Amino acid sequence: MTRPSSDAPRVAAHAGAREATPEEVGAYAVQVRAAVEGELDRLVPAETVDPPSVHAAVRWSLFAPGKRFRPLLVFAAGETFGAPHAKLIRTACAFELLHTYSLVHDDLPAMDDDDLRRGRPTCHVKFGEATAILAGDALQTLAFQAIAEDESLDADLRVRLVALLARAAGTPGGMVAGQAHDLAAEARDDVDGEELERIHRRKTGALIAAAARAGALVAGADESEVEAVNAYALDLGLLFQITDDLLDVTASASDLGKTPGKDARANKATYPALYGLEAARARALEVFERACAALDTIHTPTPVLRGLARLVLERRA
Amino acid sequence: MTRPSSDAPRVAAHAGAREATPEEVGAYAVQVRAAVEGELDRLVPAETVDPPSVHAAVRWSLFAPGKRFRPLLVFAAGETFGAPHAKLIRTACAFELLHTYSLVHDDLPAMDDDDLRRGRPTCHVKFGEATAILAGDALQTLAFQAIAEDESLDADLRVRLVALLARAAGTPGGMVAGQAHDLAAEARDDVDGEELERIHRRKTGALIAAAARAGALVAGADESEVEAVNAYALDLGLLFQITDDLLDVTASASDLGKTPGKDARANKATYPALYGLEAARARALEVFERACAALDTIHTPTPVLRGLARLVLERRA
Repeated sequence: MTRPSSDAPRVAAHAGAREATPEEVGAYAVQVRAAVEGELDRLVPAETVDPPSVHAAVRWSLFAPGKRFRPLLVFAAGETFGAPHAKLIRTACAFELLHTYSLVHDDLPAMDDDDLRRGRPTCHVKFGEATAILAGDALQTLAFQAIAEDESLDADLRVRLVALLARAAGTPGGMVAGQAHDLAAEARDDVDGEELERIHRRKTGALIAAAARAGALVAGADESEVEAVNAYALDLGLLFQITDDLLDVTASASDLGKTPGKDARANKATYPALYGLEAARARALEVFERACAALDTIHTPTPVLRGLARLVLERRA
Repeated sequence: MTRPSSDAPRVAAHAGAREATPEEVGAYAVQVRAAVEGELDRLVPAETVDPPSVHAAVRWSLFAPGKRFRPLLVFAAGETFGAPHAKLIRTACAFELLHTYSLVHDDLPAMDDDDLRRGRPTCHVKFGEATAILAGDALQTLAFQAIAEDESLDADLRVRLVALLARAAGTPGGMVAGQAHDLAAEARDDVDGEELERIHRRKTGALIAAAARAGALVAGADESEVEAVNAYALDLGLLFQITDDLLDVTASASDLGKTPGKDARANKATYPALYGLEAARARALEVFERACAALDTIHTPTPVLRGLARLVLERRA
């Protein structure tokens, strides 16, 4: 698959600046988002294709306005080490497909029972539970298919990426394990900070770290570089979660695109609940600095990855 | 991965006999089942591994007594064309993992709402809906991981198998599409025979055909042989469905290991409901003969595949 270079994100990840400005990272994110949404549109059957219910539900959840954070990390990490756009786009889409499946299933009444997501009614509210379950299932399948059929990558790399995505998504070390642990912990009131981090590392951190790792693998980065990017992204995921918890306390529904204050009502263990607002903010800064320190071991400039970490630290939605 | 040859199924698929006897096919099935269950036990985390809820639920559904029909087809098709046991076992397990995920999700209250499966309470009855959703999700992930990490196969073949499994499992041509179509059709009373076959071809036929195709691909069968086995297996899947519908009318719960008579109560379109018992039986025989005719184009003897088709035609559970 080739693509005109004008489609490629314009802010090179290794532009020389130590930390890209919020505007530069924002512009980069806009470019990635447009490219990923275009490719997702090609990967997913149209709503007119039979059976329309599942395709409408898949598209409803997939094309709701989203940050496309995991695709952004695939690109930022991959381009840091020189991977071309055309070799990253499918993998970036696979991570978004996988992530979206998890949102659809996590929102179900039997799970987190959420009505609002990305500023819209959740999939089961709009299409019914059965269709939402099937849409999530189809999204997961499509994620693996997107990588397996990516003819821009050699088969060895595709196999490594499928295995990487699966381990990050599944159990015992990945997302499903984290969600199960989180649900089990909700019924308890003795969750401490260490357990909370273990939950988040699997529930969200594993997939975020795998996205960055995948980008570096596609680029053919050497092992120490892959590990450095992985360490950075694990902390970035943790940072994302801490700021998510903070926003659940401090932001409005229209800023968030989902229902705020749910954590407190659900009596969930969160950073603000465990440590208080100020200490949670201090913890966020500490994790941000550790994420950036991991990048110091990389010999290539990493302005976008650094700028992205600051954006997560300072995000308002 | 190597394995002592004493572990390998004993009835060679190309033993020369035109149609293996029910006893021979039965013995072959027992061998495959034992090998597959052993390998599944190695692939799936133990119940003691954190989080225990998901692993217990995965194992509950996976190790319920099952026919292991899809693994059996992987082996029967693969060994017909000379693939060694060690190259088939992981792929066989992947099909069983994928199939089991679909059973767990299809049984959910929002879907078919079934309480009994493989002779036991269904996953959500035993472990709750949230855990059942997650267990199904984890099983799907594990299916793709099992193939991606199968070091007995070269990467090109693994990539083809992942794509094959994904297309058979997903949408628009696979299992999820068939299940969505089936759910949508339940609300209607104008489903005819043609539409019913279209539903079954995707809901169950696609995965069954893919299992046979996968075995032939692993063996390196030539394209016409792969297509012949695929055509055979599509009809075998249809045959399985017709006899399933017949058993739902005529068998007892203890024979079936699931609740009989559900189709009629759910006002589902079935072969007996559309055509009557006798015509449905005649249709089964016709499909059996077409399945065997597809095998006539293969130059290798296919006794096990033929015997398997007869076993499905004449099954009582």
